[in-house]
Amino acid sequence: MSNDSAILREIAEIPTVLRQSSAVQFEAIGKAVHALGGEKPRLLATMGRGSSDHAATFLRYAFGISLGIPGSSISPSMSSIYGRQLDLKGALCLVVSQSGRSPDIVRAAGMARRGGALVATIVNDMSSPLAKEVDVVIPINAGEERAIAATKSFMGAAAAGLRLLTILSSDASLRRALDTLPDVLEQTDRNHTIDLFAIVKARTAFVIGRGPALGIAQEAALKLKEIVQFPAEAYSSAEVRHGPWQLGQTDCALVGWKTDAVSSESQNAVVSAYRALGRPVLDLQDIGRRSAENLGNMIAPLIPLPGFYRALVMAAMQLGLDPDRPKLLSKVTETI
Amino acid sequence: MSNDSAILREIAEIPTVLRQSSAVQFEAIGKAVHALGGEKPRLLATMGRGSSDHAATFLRYAFGISLGIPGSSISPSMSSIYGRQLDLKGALCLVVSQSGRSPDIVRAAGMARRGGALVATIVNDMSSPLAKEVDVVIPINAGEERAIAATKSFMGAAAAGLRLLTILSSDASLRRALDTLPDVLEQTDRNHTIDLFAIVKARTAFVIGRGPALGIAQEAALKLKEIVQFPAEAYSSAEVRHGPWQLGQTDCALVGWKTDAVSSESQNAVVSAYRALGRPVLDLQDIGRRSAENLGNMIAPLIPLPGFYRALVMAAMQLGLDPDRPKLLSKVTETI
Repeated sequence: MSNDSAILREIAEIPTVLRQSSAVQFEAIGKAVHALGGEKPRLLATMGRGSSDHAATFLRYAFGISLGIPGSSISPSMSSIYGRQLDLKGALCLVVSQSGRSPDIVRAAGMARRGGALVATIVNDMSSPLAKEVDVVIPINAGEERAIAATKSFMGAAAAGLRLLTILSSDASLRRALDTLPDVLEQTDRNHTIDLFAIVKARTAFVIGRGPALGIAQEAALKLKEIVQFPAEAYSSAEVRHGPWQLGQTDCALVGWKTDAVSSESQNAVVSAYRALGRPVLDLQDIGRRSAENLGNMIAPLIPLPGFYRALVMAAMQLGLDPDRPKLLSKVTETI
Repeated sequence: MSNDSAILREIAEIPTVLRQSSAVQFEAIGKAVHALGGEKPRLLATMGRGSSDHAATFLRYAFGISLGIPGSSISPSMSSIYGRQLDLKGALCLVVSQSGRSPDIVRAAGMARRGGALVATIVNDMSSPLAKEVDVVIPINAGEERAIAATKSFMGAAAAGLRLLTILSSDASLRRALDTLPDVLEQTDRNHTIDLFAIVKARTAFVIGRGPALGIAQEAALKLKEIVQFPAEAYSSAEVRHGPWQLGQTDCALVGWKTDAVSSESQNAVVSAYRALGRPVLDLQDIGRRSAENLGNMIAPLIPLPGFYRALVMAAMQLGLDPDRPKLLSKVTETI
């Protein structure tokens, strides 16, 4: 294991993946935009499981804030279990998947096409059944991913969706921010080390984010389970003030994920209130602050992610776990 | 406290609330259907926080399965933090709230109206600001709720939404099932006692459900946090097989919520696989089996809920907690 573990190599590849995927993604995005015929979709429907579903949450918020279109997370069970054809006329459906091989996701993508959506897949494996089922294939282009936990493919999927958004919204500043992101990630990684020690000693934890950051907080909470066997749950910083707040009476830690500038005030207020309860708090709001200032709202939550992934690997090794191969998991989960 | 606690009285009132709300809800639903002008909505948008949001999840699945319309959970932050007007033309927006007083929910309801949705509120407090903001008010009609944790108002909200669905879908069997539900709940309560002892001794737990049952599993997981200070997270029985499954290596218990007949095979397979890991499992699939057989798919997940609420109160008392007043919570959470 040690430093030649697959997951550490894949985390290190993230900036390169983001740089190299730009041209090939914009070519595919051109096809998607052409197929939409200049019409703004009336709904962003998304499909995904696990990490991919969290990238989809991130994108639903980003598309909603930027374009004013509502987002719908379509459960694969709607077709795989209930055999229900949804009416998706006028919708853009984004199916996110690393492997493109989960049977329920492939089936759900077919249902979305028959329901009238333009279906675009953000996928890493271009030879997968999913890539053959859809209207437009946007490659994550992350190369093979050997570790079971997705890292470079998650970041690549989030960036691919934002690149699509830059074109649909004609947002030149978001496009420039995406071009700068690899450098910012490298610089942030040099200047910050995330330490999960106090968090994973607790009984459980919240990871809080707001807006697009909620999707990335979901990803962080999932990875805490997957890599460190640590039970963490993601919440919006408003939602956590409802019933979940009662766990502040117990040994429940809190990770305040980095949010955009617009929601940081609300997020900081929750972090402060939680700190006053005397529980362990890891606040990532300041990570990459200077370099993030010019990047705008959508990008900020992605900045702590490589460092967080690396901190998870370190914590797993300290606990005697193999971060490349979580014992009960496999790379393709065959659910229906 | 003991048997005269407010929450126990409110749980006992559930069958009566469901019986007495029928007429007043159908009157309001008539107005909603008239306002829709015979058109099937192209989107079910929902808004809610905490328990109310879980009732909304339950309803999005039920409306999707029954009517084939996609569902969208609209985050209140979209208007309260991001100031974004969503385009919701042709959508039916259901805003679920016990109090009708959370500022972000009231603001989001106004955004939905300006965005072109027909906005109906399922609300308990008819004098609330929310009731004045919307097109149609469907009363939960649960009477005053004194305990901080919602119980009768949750069941009432779920039933109100299903009553709307019976009319939109012309589903006479669902309507009959709703009429029978209060009797089934009373009968189930007499014949079954739910024991949470082995679950709340674990470090954490999953509550799994599928389809509409996922919303009720979310409600159960929230109540475990709120009333017993026990960290539980809800998952679909497909989603839990991804990264979260790794927690089966640790002291993580599992509650298999009762699902509908269509998804019970998939659910049972997960419960069996989890049991094989040797962790504590509470399987509610068989609760009210005989009486549920004639009730169809949508209703089944509601059947264990009163017994589960009561089990939570018993567990809280054993742990020396006050189930009426979780220490860090208040009845109206003022988030923006």
